Amino acid sequence: MHNKDFLYLRIAGIIKQQIVNNTLLPGDKLPSLRTICREYGVSQNTALNAYFWLERRMLIETRPKSGYYVRYAHIRIPAIPDVTRPSGIADYGYNELLVSKVYKNLGEDTYAQLSLGTPANELLPVAKLNKGLIQATRELQGSGVTYDKVEGNERLRRQIARWAFTMQGSLSKDDIITTSGCLNAISYCMMAVTERGDTVAMESPVSFGMLQLAKVLDLKVMELPTHPQTGVDLNALEDALKSNRVKAFLLISNFSNPLGSCMPDEHKKAAVLLAEKYHVPLIENDLNGDVYFGQYRPKSCKTYDTNGMVLWCSSVSKTLAPGYRVGWVAAGKFSERVIRMKLYHSISSTSITQEVIAGFLETGRYENHLRKLRHTLHGNLLNYLRAVADYFPEGTMASRPQGGFVLWIELPKSMNTMDLYEKAVARKISFAPGRIFTLQNQYHNCMRLNYGLSWNDRIEANLKFLGNLAKVKV
Amino acid sequence: MHNKDFLYLRIAGIIKQQIVNNTLLPGDKLPSLRTICREYGVSQNTALNAYFWLERRMLIETRPKSGYYVRYAHIRIPAIPDVTRPSGIADYGYNELLVSKVYKNLGEDTYAQLSLGTPANELLPVAKLNKGLIQATRELQGSGVTYDKVEGNERLRRQIARWAFTMQGSLSKDDIITTSGCLNAISYCMMAVTERGDTVAMESPVSFGMLQLAKVLDLKVMELPTHPQTGVDLNALEDALKSNRVKAFLLISNFSNPLGSCMPDEHKKAAVLLAEKYHVPLIENDLNGDVYFGQYRPKSCKTYDTNGMVLWCSSVSKTLAPGYRVGWVAAGKFSERVIRMKLYHSISSTSITQEVIAGFLETGRYENHLRKLRHTLHGNLLNYLRAVADYFPEGTMASRPQGGFVLWIELPKSMNTMDLYEKAVARKISFAPGRIFTLQNQYHNCMRLNYGLSWNDRIEANLKFLGNLAKVKV
Repeated sequence: MHNKDFLYLRIAGIIKQQIVNNTLLPGDKLPSLRTICREYGVSQNTALNAYFWLERRMLIETRPKSGYYVRYAHIRIPAIPDVTRPSGIADYGYNELLVSKVYKNLGEDTYAQLSLGTPANELLPVAKLNKGLIQATRELQGSGVTYDKVEGNERLRRQIARWAFTMQGSLSKDDIITTSGCLNAISYCMMAVTERGDTVAMESPVSFGMLQLAKVLDLKVMELPTHPQTGVDLNALEDALKSNRVKAFLLISNFSNPLGSCMPDEHKKAAVLLAEKYHVPLIENDLNGDVYFGQYRPKSCKTYDTNGMVLWCSSVSKTLAPGYRVGWVAAGKFSERVIRMKLYHSISSTSITQEVIAGFLETGRYENHLRKLRHTLHGNLLNYLRAVADYFPEGTMASRPQGGFVLWIELPKSMNTMDLYEKAVARKISFAPGRIFTLQNQYHNCMRLNYGLSWNDRIEANLKFLGNLAKVKV
Repeated sequence: MHNKDFLYLRIAGIIKQQIVNNTLLPGDKLPSLRTICREYGVSQNTALNAYFWLERRMLIETRPKSGYYVRYAHIRIPAIPDVTRPSGIADYGYNELLVSKVYKNLGEDTYAQLSLGTPANELLPVAKLNKGLIQATRELQGSGVTYDKVEGNERLRRQIARWAFTMQGSLSKDDIITTSGCLNAISYCMMAVTERGDTVAMESPVSFGMLQLAKVLDLKVMELPTHPQTGVDLNALEDALKSNRVKAFLLISNFSNPLGSCMPDEHKKAAVLLAEKYHVPLIENDLNGDVYFGQYRPKSCKTYDTNGMVLWCSSVSKTLAPGYRVGWVAAGKFSERVIRMKLYHSISSTSITQEVIAGFLETGRYENHLRKLRHTLHGNLLNYLRAVADYFPEGTMASRPQGGFVLWIELPKSMNTMDLYEKAVARKISFAPGRIFTLQNQYHNCMRLNYGLSWNDRIEANLKFLGNLAKVKV
């Protein structure tokens, strides 16, 4: 059954990719079903399923008695925003106020949670995880009741090392330390490599969790210009490191939050070289790397790390089981310090949930799940982009994420998304205003939308409502 | 069945208590089985089971054709050590070195783990917890796959508040924040109420986890004189707070680690008044309060806290499920800050294990388990005390814990327990040398023994071996 699933999705994925690449242009006629059957050696049914899938995602359309065509609507995708130009003074207080305002309704089911950066619950394989849990009570010594080792579950660490294909075999289980999610990994890394009052450099805009963590650790944040497609501006990064003020830098290398940017391989390599040259540790947040929409998983900065200057952090919280609190770090030459942080702050991680995730990785269930998740999310993204083009005001720009869960929207300069937020939330629609992703006085006309939801008419209506709100002159 | 269990254990408990109180003296004849049956209205079998239980713990003995008697060996209990007198300079480095030396063999099953401060795995109700886990996947929304609220599982928080009998109903679920174990709770509290470079006051000797945590948070530690029976010296505490240098103080109010001391109610009340008077937060570690050997659970400092100055921390890690990482804190007026620490460092705790513990509390399974655990541990303690009296050198003193898992031994001044440790570990016996419980140059002649193991001949032989080692003049 999985094999069948895989076939039609693979075919749909290839065509989708060609549409996104502009290899297939709007209005182009697609191969007939018979051609698909012959070319791929599949049944008529499989070919039909592939086309259904593309149709449901509004990438293609049927014309009666003529065949399948790439949809015209697809050309109405908004332009990509320019590189960001952060500057000015930092203000933790205002940021914190906004964040708590935006997320106070987090738990309420009645809200349309466009403000989140995680997949909706219905996209998670709950039944299979429950099975895994029961199995883990049988297989794990002490059924997970007893303390785990401080470095974490051995089976899980081996699987993480094995799974990190893009590391090209350079990681072993001894490099991995498990944590209670990715934020927890980053927290230990930050504590391991910085001291109070130090400055850390980050992309801008950046996930507000990073800003909050920096705040409680009493760190200053230097926000760096960042491109929505290629991530941090390397020249600006080098200037920052050269100044000798930066004690660590933090990059979301793949499908960043909130921009959705993905650093090209050469950029990753260059960032690692800068870390070595200036001897400043690079904390890499690679939380979303597995949720790619292209053919291959993008590499990590860690792939190019020969001197142990990269602390590579990730988790399954955004893809598989948020509530399991399973994350990890390969901390290079800072491993000893990070282990000590984990030990002294929490002794060890939850035993049983680590074992379940280990099983998911080992048996390929994780990869099966990811395959479907990626296709769903990519389809969603294309729908969001189309809806933004259809409903948002002239001049609206949108990032073009190649993976992950979030889309960055830039409205015309005159708009203020905090005002929009007030009006949207009155209608139980919640999104993330741009201002919460910076400590500076900027991104007022921006917003982040979560497309990790199951696409339906309600979402379409909500995006339309948001677009109309944005069209009203203040 | 539980009812029957309860009866014979209750009878055994009462007699045990009378022996420990010296109400029944060594050599005293015990009531006949028939008397027990009549007095307590129980069957012959129940009475017999009670006496068997006491006999197995070597508290009583049968004399053929005569009946049951309190054992003579019982009087050979070592004297209690004097109040500690910490002074001198602090040295984090040496402490850290020793701790990692002592605990490097932690995971190895072949070692006699007298060095731990936790119950052995076979004392934990693994099968019942596994059942609870399966039930939790059915009952908890999202089966624990999705994020929990930052404050923690609501059902668990309500149960913790309900369970905190000794708080006399003053706690509600809204006061409770769950954490990944008790150390994690203390870590968030310390981060919430101190800044780098501050001084915190603690008992001395103190659990080395507290010293390590203080170190990574860059805090100075003021060690306070402490009595093996009644805990911290209140005059010394007031002097410390008066000096205006201390930003927080940390007390293990019940069955402290490593001394096993328990603060009397008036001392707890006085400590809380001091916290209020000098406006210094009291972080209360009440990890062991449920493992009492007397008739009632001792109160907590939190019981007397009317102004929210006490941050009450506890967990089920030492009594029920270490690997579940379920702990909590009622942080009084510091709640908001502690919640923010949890959110910014880890988002939330593992969802599913919290639900399992909530079920254990709700159904009374936790209390059932604790009742057995307390009896077992008390029996073990009495065996340890007897063995120390039997095998250790003249002049050896021992604390007299009224609960918990650990016993503090003071050997004659000339002994060095780090030297003993080297010799013991060569025979695969591991204990905790006194020097690891301080940053100062003291407690060289002390050791902490874990009696949270199932008592057997091997432990008796190990204690005999340790005693003989201690008898050898260096």
